[in-house]
Amino acid sequence: MSISRRDLLRLAASTAASRLGQAQESRKVGYCMVGLGRISMQHFMPACRTTRQSRVTALVSGHRDKAERMAAEYGIPRENIYSYENYDAIATNQDIDAVYVALPNSMHAEYTIRAAKAGKHVLCEKPMATSVADAQAMVDACRAANRKLMIAYRCQLEQTNLHAIDLIRSGKLGKVEAIQSAYGFNIGRNEWRCNSKLAGGGPLMDVGIYSLNACRYLTGEEPAELHGYASVIDQDGRFKEVEENLAWTMKFPSGVVASCDTAYGADMPGYYRVHGSKGVLHVDAAFGYEGQILTAHVQGQPVVSEPNPAKDPSHFVLEADHFAECVLRNMTPKTPGEEGLRDMQLMERIYQSCGRKLA
Amino acid sequence: MSISRRDLLRLAASTAASRLGQAQESRKVGYCMVGLGRISMQHFMPACRTTRQSRVTALVSGHRDKAERMAAEYGIPRENIYSYENYDAIATNQDIDAVYVALPNSMHAEYTIRAAKAGKHVLCEKPMATSVADAQAMVDACRAANRKLMIAYRCQLEQTNLHAIDLIRSGKLGKVEAIQSAYGFNIGRNEWRCNSKLAGGGPLMDVGIYSLNACRYLTGEEPAELHGYASVIDQDGRFKEVEENLAWTMKFPSGVVASCDTAYGADMPGYYRVHGSKGVLHVDAAFGYEGQILTAHVQGQPVVSEPNPAKDPSHFVLEADHFAECVLRNMTPKTPGEEGLRDMQLMERIYQSCGRKLA
Repeated sequence: MSISRRDLLRLAASTAASRLGQAQESRKVGYCMVGLGRISMQHFMPACRTTRQSRVTALVSGHRDKAERMAAEYGIPRENIYSYENYDAIATNQDIDAVYVALPNSMHAEYTIRAAKAGKHVLCEKPMATSVADAQAMVDACRAANRKLMIAYRCQLEQTNLHAIDLIRSGKLGKVEAIQSAYGFNIGRNEWRCNSKLAGGGPLMDVGIYSLNACRYLTGEEPAELHGYASVIDQDGRFKEVEENLAWTMKFPSGVVASCDTAYGADMPGYYRVHGSKGVLHVDAAFGYEGQILTAHVQGQPVVSEPNPAKDPSHFVLEADHFAECVLRNMTPKTPGEEGLRDMQLMERIYQSCGRKLA
Repeated sequence: MSISRRDLLRLAASTAASRLGQAQESRKVGYCMVGLGRISMQHFMPACRTTRQSRVTALVSGHRDKAERMAAEYGIPRENIYSYENYDAIATNQDIDAVYVALPNSMHAEYTIRAAKAGKHVLCEKPMATSVADAQAMVDACRAANRKLMIAYRCQLEQTNLHAIDLIRSGKLGKVEAIQSAYGFNIGRNEWRCNSKLAGGGPLMDVGIYSLNACRYLTGEEPAELHGYASVIDQDGRFKEVEENLAWTMKFPSGVVASCDTAYGADMPGYYRVHGSKGVLHVDAAFGYEGQILTAHVQGQPVVSEPNPAKDPSHFVLEADHFAECVLRNMTPKTPGEEGLRDMQLMERIYQSCGRKLA
């Protein structure tokens, strides 16, 4: 009796599946990666090696070779590799509790809705979608299927940002009066993010969204009014479809005003400054994967200075485990679909005020 | 023959006048202080002790006692002390070449126009006036009288700001894409600056003007579009008349976008960040009387870091001597009346976009 290579692989896969089965008992949520790009391969998957409640159990990719390499690296059975065509078959795979959607923005809606229909929970990267209608459809589909939906707003789980929120809520800064925030970078050539059909919009959708979201979680309010200016300078042909720079202001119901800025045409390190009636809070590198630096000057108090929190746990560990916990304990995620939908609605209004629109 | 106290004072004054006459020969411009407040007494007058081409030769004040004390301290003859009533008599005083108008904003126009009619050049504090019409009338009056008019925009003479402009013009930052700037402070109670009739407006007029002016001198462009949001929170009755916070954005013809912020309700250290296609320039304490800190990160270049330039010469020395030189050599000041008028026009548009108006 001869054993073929195929048989050997099947055997290996079934052994792996059995291992996965055991782990399931220790209540780890099995994630299927939807899209094998930088954020999945370099951030989410490595992070899952150190999570308490999460593991990567399946992959969806259009590149079989890459998927097989990653599967081997993470001990994922070959049966758990899907293409975009047979993606709906995840429905019958018990190794998969949830999907992590890390595709170009325009594909988020389709692959979220298909996952919900397949009975899987969805952790979806930001921006949630490329239109308000798509974002609403995602919320509706997950609700109809009784599946959890979380948008991957890392910063709302990250310790420095949480400390900033605590400082504000404690009243130490007095009444918040004004916020400034910016985030941008000089984008490379031939990025899908400069294709309006794939990205929906430019830097506002991709990185400006961090400042927008921060102004909302720092104040705990929704902006009542917003207005922006977008510009395209385009020295080198990168900005035929999306905006290059966008500055906008917002006014919140309590009277807080915010001025924000984003760009694909220049490096613009992420930060925010919160000006209260009793003190000023400054967070540098506010939105990066690590290296947040918090400084607070409060009247009559020693300066609070917290540079560079420990790199571990990574934001991706926090995010994977938070959603896993929501799935396991039937809790609402801290940043559910509705949170992403709200940002989409606000970004649509910012674009409208600029005389632009979502793709 | 008895000599009265009055005679002695007259003798002293005539001796002082004779001293002034000699100094005139060394081509120092004689300034008459119009208004003895903090900026005149603590900044401009002390600075004039160390200037090359400026000296204080006369005073205008509503408080005779204070004026006499200052006159004694600066060796100014008593004849050169004026009240607001007999101010026009400066016309016949040869010790006075120019006036320095450092009054509440609403009085700038009247005392500039009366000075011009009296044949004197005018260095006027910012904001130039409390309305565009007043600012235009000031420009017109000085032009009709063939007198110089300069608005006291210190920063356009200050070394760190000039270096920032040079770095931008040299092209080292590449194409400027976006600017962020802010300046504000927590204002005290019972300040004339919170009285709309005296001040014209709130923090935009007083300190936001620095960010507005900076965006113009950093880009060398005039904003094509601007939009803001003003708010009044008023926890303690300070903001019955003027705005408490104001955030605004601008778009310049080349595509630069700017987001700016100002406040009277919170401390907001002055700064600007200029984001170019090849690098980022950051100036902290950009608008203070001293302590500017410039940092520039340019691709492939060592970081430029210039903390805290020497305190001397003070900005007031630079300003007094620049205007003196313009008077002596018949040159146009770097920041003439038209520069102040432009800011007034832009601030009027920002207020209009906020649904507010200049007083």
